[in-house]
Amino acid sequence: MQAEIITVGTEIILGSIVNTNAVYLSKKLMEMGIETHYHTSVDDDYKRLESAIEIAIDRADIIILTGGLGPTDDDLTKEALANVIKKPLVADVDMQDYLKNYFAYSNRVMTDNNLKQAMKPSGGDFIPNPRGTAPGIYVEYKDKKIILMPGPPRELKPMFEEYVYDLIKDDFNIVVKSISVAGIGESSLETELKSLDIYLPNFTITTYASTGYIEIKVIGRGENLEELNKTSDIIVDRINSKIKDYIFSLDNKSLEEELLNALSKRNLKLAVCESFTGGSIAKRLTLVDGASKVFDRGLVTYSKEAKIDELKVNPDTIKKFGVVSYEVAYEMAKNLLDKTKVDLVISTTGYAGKDEDSIQGLSYICILNQTDHKVFKMNFPGDRRAVVDRATNFALSEALRFIKK
Amino acid sequence: MQAEIITVGTEIILGSIVNTNAVYLSKKLMEMGIETHYHTSVDDDYKRLESAIEIAIDRADIIILTGGLGPTDDDLTKEALANVIKKPLVADVDMQDYLKNYFAYSNRVMTDNNLKQAMKPSGGDFIPNPRGTAPGIYVEYKDKKIILMPGPPRELKPMFEEYVYDLIKDDFNIVVKSISVAGIGESSLETELKSLDIYLPNFTITTYASTGYIEIKVIGRGENLEELNKTSDIIVDRINSKIKDYIFSLDNKSLEEELLNALSKRNLKLAVCESFTGGSIAKRLTLVDGASKVFDRGLVTYSKEAKIDELKVNPDTIKKFGVVSYEVAYEMAKNLLDKTKVDLVISTTGYAGKDEDSIQGLSYICILNQTDHKVFKMNFPGDRRAVVDRATNFALSEALRFIKK
Repeated sequence: MQAEIITVGTEIILGSIVNTNAVYLSKKLMEMGIETHYHTSVDDDYKRLESAIEIAIDRADIIILTGGLGPTDDDLTKEALANVIKKPLVADVDMQDYLKNYFAYSNRVMTDNNLKQAMKPSGGDFIPNPRGTAPGIYVEYKDKKIILMPGPPRELKPMFEEYVYDLIKDDFNIVVKSISVAGIGESSLETELKSLDIYLPNFTITTYASTGYIEIKVIGRGENLEELNKTSDIIVDRINSKIKDYIFSLDNKSLEEELLNALSKRNLKLAVCESFTGGSIAKRLTLVDGASKVFDRGLVTYSKEAKIDELKVNPDTIKKFGVVSYEVAYEMAKNLLDKTKVDLVISTTGYAGKDEDSIQGLSYICILNQTDHKVFKMNFPGDRRAVVDRATNFALSEALRFIKK
Repeated sequence: MQAEIITVGTEIILGSIVNTNAVYLSKKLMEMGIETHYHTSVDDDYKRLESAIEIAIDRADIIILTGGLGPTDDDLTKEALANVIKKPLVADVDMQDYLKNYFAYSNRVMTDNNLKQAMKPSGGDFIPNPRGTAPGIYVEYKDKKIILMPGPPRELKPMFEEYVYDLIKDDFNIVVKSISVAGIGESSLETELKSLDIYLPNFTITTYASTGYIEIKVIGRGENLEELNKTSDIIVDRINSKIKDYIFSLDNKSLEEELLNALSKRNLKLAVCESFTGGSIAKRLTLVDGASKVFDRGLVTYSKEAKIDELKVNPDTIKKFGVVSYEVAYEMAKNLLDKTKVDLVISTTGYAGKDEDSIQGLSYICILNQTDHKVFKMNFPGDRRAVVDRATNFALSEALRFIKK
């Protein structure tokens, strides 16, 4: 089974928005064992849209189109498809009623334009959209499966998971396991994985690298679900026993989620004090729902004065060892622990940018509780943003390791 | 002139990386007055790559391919192109020498594979790549311009700006002006723009909306550069006089850059105290090079205790008005100003998430100096991340307005 994704919209073609739908759908299809070979993006032009659909029908078995299902005149995806597959659009009375109720319920005015959304190619089926007014469409043509979904990701993602997944999955079963790792480079990780006896028939193992962490996906595809589950567990166990120290989640969770969970389970409170990471650690943590149960406060002591005022770092320590030093990182963390009632503190001091007299990426990160502490001296590569991202992921992952040991 | 962008690489097709090259190139082409109608992404497969190139040659005048120029066996872009346009690859002695020197200079071992990068389709030209070992390629075929560029954005972007721009620009001149605005919605902005006499021949005016700010581009294209400049200045002036209050940059700078610049010019120091924005304002500011000259500190006083300990917010104020209130926002800002030597303070308190008894998005933002202050009560829409992003942009833009008035 080969898939093609067609994203429709002038705003994609002009570079106004990033094509995150193609990324999302590709990952999902890959996890289902469906190969995607082409992504096409096309502007809101009827003729070009027709041509893109014709080409896709010619070379793929599953064609997923996103965007251009709205009520306005430049929403043309359904019209172009209907013309290519010669199945004229017909009005659906049930969908008209549904839309009328939807608008009445949400106290919005329904225009005639909106009735366009109750049209579907004859022989096709609507796919429900509980989060918007544009339903999806499913239609078969020449043994090909064609799916139309709305463009907004918050409508597309649930529609894919709740409905489209079942429409395009084949008779094979799919098992997907996620292993998230930090603190190991992509090529070292590949070497470790290749040394293991995990490359079995029906299984694909891929890695997705981000700045500071890597996601390993173990994907099994076959007829016997029980056997797939058993084998995938064996593969995960083998990976786990080889690189246990680097794994932070077997559950598709982010570093910050895992850290907050681990602290919450142990009934521990966290505070952070950041210099060169400038609030990045606090921001990551506080974007997690329920962070306030664990995260007490963050101090971004950017200037030397702020370190002395807010954290009572001894000016002599700064004078003697420099502001980017083991000693300052330790004092920042120690003094914050002492002045608060938290159980764990993370501190950072370093150079994010390129200034005179500084080594970009050089930094000290301290993790500390009442009885123990660790200070890491690191050299993070990359530009300002990359240095901060890497340091943030490193600090979160070492804090997690610290409380788990 | 119609362009097509083909991005090559299995990692794009699997959703491992986001296709930022297509976004970058589309914007650049639009600014040059070149229409892009299709983006195609294809995996590292020789046959499918050939087919994608054939289709593009058939429907576009300018074809830009990115990726697949590396030294490894799955880098096939040049090979596929050479076959489609029937211009066999030939080795270039000068490029071989250049690559040998490049490797020697950077103390790296050159493998035979790297010599592949000294091959080009006969009749084609190399495009220099000062930032990597894969040169670009320019070749004409059936009056079409075909460009090959390496995939890494840090190599692609300078190559485009320094060389490709001149290769594909036509005889017309292009003038581009940027106007960045915040505090006005996209549809209101469009209404304002449409009321102005700025839609002149040869000029395109487009808007790029992000969470919390919008970029307006005024693009003129014509023969007479002087006239284009004069007309575009008139357009910018008209926009400026209509929506002056919302404009924060005429220079393509971000809100945080403009705020830090404005503070720096006035020799003012800044501190922030954040509750629900959780370090997001501090992070945005500290990611700007040279932020330390202006940004003194940030306090992420997430818990009630942190607000009382760190900012001496009166517990009675919290009891009486609630933690999300005008009074707490004001006290946070006032007390931070009093305890530091900074000149301007931003404070935030609000609900980022959906908890019981809270209204998601409700928030108070205070901007304060020694003599004046403003407190804004806001209701930011969207999920946790959107609320925080919108609040951050709002706070930065109001702080900028505050010191400029």
